[in-house]
Amino acid sequence: MTPLNIGQTAQMLMQMDDVLILCHKYPDGDTIGSAFALCTALLRIGKRAAVMCSDIIPSKYSYIYEHIEIPEFEPRHIVAVDVADTKLLGSPLEETYGDKIELCIDHHASNIGYAQYLLLDSKAAACGEILCHLIPMLGVEIDKHIANGLFTALSTDSGCFRYPNTTPETMRIAASLMEAGADAAMINRLMFETKSRARMEVERGVLSTLEFWFDSKCAVIVLENALVERLRAGEGDLEGLAPIPKRIEGVKVGVLLRECEDGWKISVRSDPDVSASDICKQLGGGGHFTAAGCHVDGSLEEAKFIIKNVIERYI
Amino acid sequence: MTPLNIGQTAQMLMQMDDVLILCHKYPDGDTIGSAFALCTALLRIGKRAAVMCSDIIPSKYSYIYEHIEIPEFEPRHIVAVDVADTKLLGSPLEETYGDKIELCIDHHASNIGYAQYLLLDSKAAACGEILCHLIPMLGVEIDKHIANGLFTALSTDSGCFRYPNTTPETMRIAASLMEAGADAAMINRLMFETKSRARMEVERGVLSTLEFWFDSKCAVIVLENALVERLRAGEGDLEGLAPIPKRIEGVKVGVLLRECEDGWKISVRSDPDVSASDICKQLGGGGHFTAAGCHVDGSLEEAKFIIKNVIERYI
Repeated sequence: MTPLNIGQTAQMLMQMDDVLILCHKYPDGDTIGSAFALCTALLRIGKRAAVMCSDIIPSKYSYIYEHIEIPEFEPRHIVAVDVADTKLLGSPLEETYGDKIELCIDHHASNIGYAQYLLLDSKAAACGEILCHLIPMLGVEIDKHIANGLFTALSTDSGCFRYPNTTPETMRIAASLMEAGADAAMINRLMFETKSRARMEVERGVLSTLEFWFDSKCAVIVLENALVERLRAGEGDLEGLAPIPKRIEGVKVGVLLRECEDGWKISVRSDPDVSASDICKQLGGGGHFTAAGCHVDGSLEEAKFIIKNVIERYI
Repeated sequence: MTPLNIGQTAQMLMQMDDVLILCHKYPDGDTIGSAFALCTALLRIGKRAAVMCSDIIPSKYSYIYEHIEIPEFEPRHIVAVDVADTKLLGSPLEETYGDKIELCIDHHASNIGYAQYLLLDSKAAACGEILCHLIPMLGVEIDKHIANGLFTALSTDSGCFRYPNTTPETMRIAASLMEAGADAAMINRLMFETKSRARMEVERGVLSTLEFWFDSKCAVIVLENALVERLRAGEGDLEGLAPIPKRIEGVKVGVLLRECEDGWKISVRSDPDVSASDICKQLGGGGHFTAAGCHVDGSLEEAKFIIKNVIERYI
């Protein structure tokens, strides 16, 4: 793996054609907004480019991609955006492209360096923040379509400019994107204000599972498949549940256990003085310092027992 | 009432001494942050100044005022910040000072012009945004204490930069305040991320009252005193409930009915194509275009009947 700076990355992209851009699985606003902004920029300078994701991209993001006409082509260069690990590509993209990724653009400090070349800025609040600097270096002016993608990336990954990763630079870039035509009011309404009725019910459901460990310093919620099926909740209704327990006053570590095919996907959120990343690493996972994840097999009681024992050592 | 521009207002403040600054009742981050920022600035240039509010200022805002030493003095000039109407001063401030307000600094288009002089900028996302321009004109550098107050004003009144009142200017001012020392991460965690256990229970409680009117274009929640008492919820646990019903997909008008001594306080939130302000004006209230309030006497069923009939004409 060779690290690149932003100028070198722009030069490399200028020399590429027939570019396939990959998102991570369970796609969020950052990977989707960044991928389509880069795709639009490459198309704009006469290249063939497309975006792929192992999961379906939720329709609420349609304003980001509906203007794009994707050409037919055989990919010659594979670029991953906002993907810290090939495992996060999901199936089938991991099997097909996992060992063929030429360039990765990312902001996760935990990036494992799987790509041939890596542009990494772990201080950026979102991968989209890096692209705000990169795209003009391709000679492309940020128009309203690109601005909508990048604003979505910034605002979703910073919790609408609320999380500690938000810097003055993030705020100024967001201001510029608004001036370039990003419809911030529409995007924020769609991303943060609007909830489906199923989502409202999901929140009530997980809140009813709330329990506290370690003198209320740790709060835990559970999302079981039975609830998801009963409410006919889609993937979009289930995003953003992980931060809920951490929001309760006095809670230093918040945990979401989500039932999956072969056990439990565990999301951990922590105060700045506890490493969620270290907690999850003990169980083979990883992520950001205060927001990380891992996977545990077994029953709900077993999964709780395992994660509880690890957290005890860190809290 | 004489309208002032920002330069004239700065000049007027420079000539005042012994200034009492008034907040509106049910104080929020904007009125508190703006009032203490202005107070700090006036103290910094050697004047006597103090802040008063008819209600207790919730302790979560203590980082805004705990550094201030308020001198003893008899007020000679009364200034109101973020107060659109003397009725909003509440008791006892309304009776004591309602007809003695020399200067009002505000961003509500609905300001009734009760003060002798008025600095009004209805495009500002928060009253604090106006003070970000005004305070440097007093010859005061914005330090971390003032920045914390003003950042709180901006971020709370813009829903953490999420509501449509947020402009590129709002974002850039917020960036400058962060650079001046505002602890954005701490403020946003306190204001938006942290919820008491009582608050979590209040949210579950009001969600269980959710009902839909007019083909689900209007959603309604109710907060009864019985719930508040059972959960021993404080005023701070009850803020920010009004936007909840409006967040549901497809809802154009969201309504909160909150039980009060002599009836119901009704908060209305609306899409940009429906005037919440007009709806509330029909019942003697008012506010911003998409966020307004009014008061209705009677039982819950009577209050619902009354507001439902008004909304029907606007939806």
